[in-house]
Amino acid sequence: MTTIEQPLSGTPRTRLGRKRNRAAVDRAVLAEVLHAGFVCHLGFVRDGVPVVLPTAYAVDMGPDAPDAPDGTLYLHGSVAARSLVAAPDQTVCVTVTHVDGLVLARSGFDSSMNYRSAVVFGCPRVLADDEKRHALDLLVDHLMPGRAAAVRPMTRKDLAATTVLALPLTEVSLKVRDGGVDEEPKDTELPIWAGVVPLRLAAGAPQPSPDCALPVPAHVTDRVRDLHPPV
Amino acid sequence: MTTIEQPLSGTPRTRLGRKRNRAAVDRAVLAEVLHAGFVCHLGFVRDGVPVVLPTAYAVDMGPDAPDAPDGTLYLHGSVAARSLVAAPDQTVCVTVTHVDGLVLARSGFDSSMNYRSAVVFGCPRVLADDEKRHALDLLVDHLMPGRAAAVRPMTRKDLAATTVLALPLTEVSLKVRDGGVDEEPKDTELPIWAGVVPLRLAAGAPQPSPDCALPVPAHVTDRVRDLHPPV
Repeated sequence: MTTIEQPLSGTPRTRLGRKRNRAAVDRAVLAEVLHAGFVCHLGFVRDGVPVVLPTAYAVDMGPDAPDAPDGTLYLHGSVAARSLVAAPDQTVCVTVTHVDGLVLARSGFDSSMNYRSAVVFGCPRVLADDEKRHALDLLVDHLMPGRAAAVRPMTRKDLAATTVLALPLTEVSLKVRDGGVDEEPKDTELPIWAGVVPLRLAAGAPQPSPDCALPVPAHVTDRVRDLHPPV
Repeated sequence: MTTIEQPLSGTPRTRLGRKRNRAAVDRAVLAEVLHAGFVCHLGFVRDGVPVVLPTAYAVDMGPDAPDAPDGTLYLHGSVAARSLVAAPDQTVCVTVTHVDGLVLARSGFDSSMNYRSAVVFGCPRVLADDEKRHALDLLVDHLMPGRAAAVRPMTRKDLAATTVLALPLTEVSLKVRDGGVDEEPKDTELPIWAGVVPLRLAAGAPQPSPDCALPVPAHVTDRVRDLHPPV
């Protein structure tokens, strides 16, 4: 079982409350976790109550943004955006989680899951129309790298009709649990099977629209191939 | 593209703010969405800030709970439990999401994801030790049906060391997007491939612990078979 040791920022809310040995320091691992997700879970407070919504997102961790050295998460806004416009400067929490395996100990108590999880806190900013193009290209390429260059160019109407939030990747914590079963030595003598069942998100064959007779392009077959291999 | 029409409860916070046609009424669909997930995302408020944590959970929607006719979600508590014990009677939000496919339109604007998502609001209750056994069995069986009967029986120490929260499945909304691309008719004439890439969580071959020479039991092979089929 691999464990990694600290949050990526030292603020109280990213200091982990338990299982501190599951926090990871490496920003490369953070990038990998964020790039591999399809939706994040965006949490915000509305009328004093937490709301958690699945949200499309993209990651901008390139070196070409001197004003955001930690990188930026772009969130496809909708309900959350309306709420955040009504109450600006509020902190949100964005979480991306991958379930990598079922860890089956001889006891329920030591059974667990392998997972990678990134938690980001911050005050998101609603992008102006002229800032959205870059973020929306990243949102399209996040699902399917290379797709942004292949689709019909964005119109002004597209830009105006889409809300994008930008959240700096400054206050982040990362937890990783991987490897095998970790259990009481005396339990290992029991005649009960123990082990790990690996899990991953897999892609199936592309299903063309009924009105599309074109061959499946390379950016799609590449993505499917990368997602497809058996676990 | 299938759309379903309403939230499962009529409170303002489960009345969807947009894409109302993606809300589903069917409690059978709710049960399916909840049963199929491995982690939920639990949102709560700590010091005025939303916190969203991936959390193991189980679903109790059987007919044998007259005091919880809508069913109950059990949450494996930890950080959240401490926070909720410190501030009882606070509302939480629990979201379970499945990403079922990438919907690739000829424009970025009409590109989307197929998904199923359940959002539950409520005030969770921390279970007493004598109530936990049933919930913990369900948590084990949620990952791997049949496993609770196969593992070493729980000890009093196991029970005392585990926090379980119970959340009634009363205030719930459900959103489902499935089917194909939905785009502007004029975009369909563009020479750009469009279609759907299906996604699902798939299982790999069970990896026995190094100290385990037993054959893989049926409850494990059954689960892997159910999760394994190509998309």
